[in-house]
Amino acid sequence: MTPVSQLHTEQVEFISGVAGKLNEFLAVQQDMMATISPDVAPLMGSISNLVTGGKRLRALMCYWGWRGAGGPAADADILTAGCALELFQAAALIHDDIIDRSDTRRGGPSVHRRFSQLHEANGWALDNERFGHAAAILTGDLCLSFSEESFTEIGPRAAAGSEARRIFNLMRAEVMAGQYLDILEEVAGPVRDRAGSVERATSIIRYKSAKYSTEHPLALGGALAGASEDLLKAYSAFSLPLGEAFQLRDDVLGVFGDPETTGKPAGDDLREGKRTVLVGFAINLAPTDQATYLDEMLGKPNLGEDEVSTIRNIMVDCGALDATEALIDDLSDKAFAALEQLPLEELPLTALRQLAEAAVSRAA
Amino acid sequence: MTPVSQLHTEQVEFISGVAGKLNEFLAVQQDMMATISPDVAPLMGSISNLVTGGKRLRALMCYWGWRGAGGPAADADILTAGCALELFQAAALIHDDIIDRSDTRRGGPSVHRRFSQLHEANGWALDNERFGHAAAILTGDLCLSFSEESFTEIGPRAAAGSEARRIFNLMRAEVMAGQYLDILEEVAGPVRDRAGSVERATSIIRYKSAKYSTEHPLALGGALAGASEDLLKAYSAFSLPLGEAFQLRDDVLGVFGDPETTGKPAGDDLREGKRTVLVGFAINLAPTDQATYLDEMLGKPNLGEDEVSTIRNIMVDCGALDATEALIDDLSDKAFAALEQLPLEELPLTALRQLAEAAVSRAA
Repeated sequence: MTPVSQLHTEQVEFISGVAGKLNEFLAVQQDMMATISPDVAPLMGSISNLVTGGKRLRALMCYWGWRGAGGPAADADILTAGCALELFQAAALIHDDIIDRSDTRRGGPSVHRRFSQLHEANGWALDNERFGHAAAILTGDLCLSFSEESFTEIGPRAAAGSEARRIFNLMRAEVMAGQYLDILEEVAGPVRDRAGSVERATSIIRYKSAKYSTEHPLALGGALAGASEDLLKAYSAFSLPLGEAFQLRDDVLGVFGDPETTGKPAGDDLREGKRTVLVGFAINLAPTDQATYLDEMLGKPNLGEDEVSTIRNIMVDCGALDATEALIDDLSDKAFAALEQLPLEELPLTALRQLAEAAVSRAA
Repeated sequence: MTPVSQLHTEQVEFISGVAGKLNEFLAVQQDMMATISPDVAPLMGSISNLVTGGKRLRALMCYWGWRGAGGPAADADILTAGCALELFQAAALIHDDIIDRSDTRRGGPSVHRRFSQLHEANGWALDNERFGHAAAILTGDLCLSFSEESFTEIGPRAAAGSEARRIFNLMRAEVMAGQYLDILEEVAGPVRDRAGSVERATSIIRYKSAKYSTEHPLALGGALAGASEDLLKAYSAFSLPLGEAFQLRDDVLGVFGDPETTGKPAGDDLREGKRTVLVGFAINLAPTDQATYLDEMLGKPNLGEDEVSTIRNIMVDCGALDATEALIDDLSDKAFAALEQLPLEELPLTALRQLAEAAVSRAA
């Protein structure tokens, strides 16, 4: 087998192994839940539906972190770790969509919308939206518990006191803290000093996204395979700037992306009031009246196409888009430079390079 | 020492040991969170505040389950288990209060209200209620993760594959399923068959409350101390009817309790639309027009004192209150009969008897 086809084969096997592990895990849970009541089926359906799709970025980072540290290709523990990460991501998405009032997820209704629709379809009493939110809070909690249950199934490698468990705990706490900083900045940003907005937005993407999506999954895979402290440090030098560049790209797509490709309505990040690094640059670089206009428009749920277009123009004209693109380039350069320093064999190195390229140059 | 004073001393030592463990655990988390940003302090403050009070019913059930199965009085593992249960309960309360739109908890503002007040006090932008809910979802998620992190710290006794871990997993899944059945019945109850309402309400209290508050904590303590399958079964024969009686008492207090004593406004359960066993009896025993009145009033957030009073009269007149009290008596009898069959030493037996008496005869 050529290195390229070996990489492809391994990756496909891992992804399908994780999918199999997820099915197996959820089938056991489904049997347990069915003994309680047939009425709880929609909770399980929502979770199964959500873990079926997605880019599996975190599971793949974990896998190649494991392989890079010498973990064998076919191993049950790394499949279980991938399964736990996917369940955690599903839980985070369920609650995130409630928080952001996002009605769609991967082209379909988000979980709270699914429950609202179930309410409407059955002609139930009281408020369908409130029921949807309540049911989705509980579904997310259940999925969060499943994630941990799955992670514990790894056994000794992820037991109390292990480096892998430390990373898993830190990952969860940091992403929740980062999400709080994100919603805090939405409401507190307009009354805080403008000069600090880029720095605050950078801290948010670090905790909410970069550490969670790339740094911790890669380190987790490494730790499960017994990586040295030096290797984990080298992983971080690559994965942290990569994750930041990944999220900055996401933020640019949230305002300038093609809805056909991203699957999200254009300008939704603006309607949600996300105060991203891109917004931070704009607030600081645009003339005062335009910055004030931005402050006023951000978070308006009924922002029209015209207003979104005006905001885009402000971001382009004042140089905020250029500044963000320059930062993405800078972080990408750092990530790729650190990648080439990684003491890895050719296969995991190539795999991580491909993942990194896909992460920073994507259009969706 | 007399048996009574030994029991008291042990229980006080355990409770203060759990409080100490909680402080210690949360101090470590606080240090970690402080490295992210001082802005995340309110999340930690909310959690600390919530685990400070409470009856510690679950932790105590766990403790005496442990002692009954031969666990030693002073042991770090059982303190850690108590700490994990208290953190799980705090997480459940945070999300429960969002779901039930409860603005008060133990006489103070609930967590989502605390965050709404923080928003108002700082003059932040956008919607304070929405911010409160979002922040409380994240605080509950963080607390749920902490609970599991703490549970894992027990080590080998609670490792993958252990009976204690199995019970902990089942407890989490069942309480979330039970809470879903609870909110489902609020909306679906009015269009479902009235004849099945008592049975459905009984299933809800079993999963949402009895298994979670008494059966699983007692079994968890027993399992950590290596209890036999027979002892765990005997525990269950006592703790499941006890937990059901406990929740039925709660439901009666939610409608007939003295607000001064319960700390909750009278009739709040009716405003939330809880379709309890008491409500189920009323729907079935009251004349049709009164049952229909009940269906219409349940879940009205602005239900007045007069309407609450009318509902109370209906419940008394049709015999629903008597039927519920009779059920509480029946379940209590079952629980106490099973208690006397437990093959325990005098100390844990007396302790469980005291806990059981407090649970079913309380006024708050």
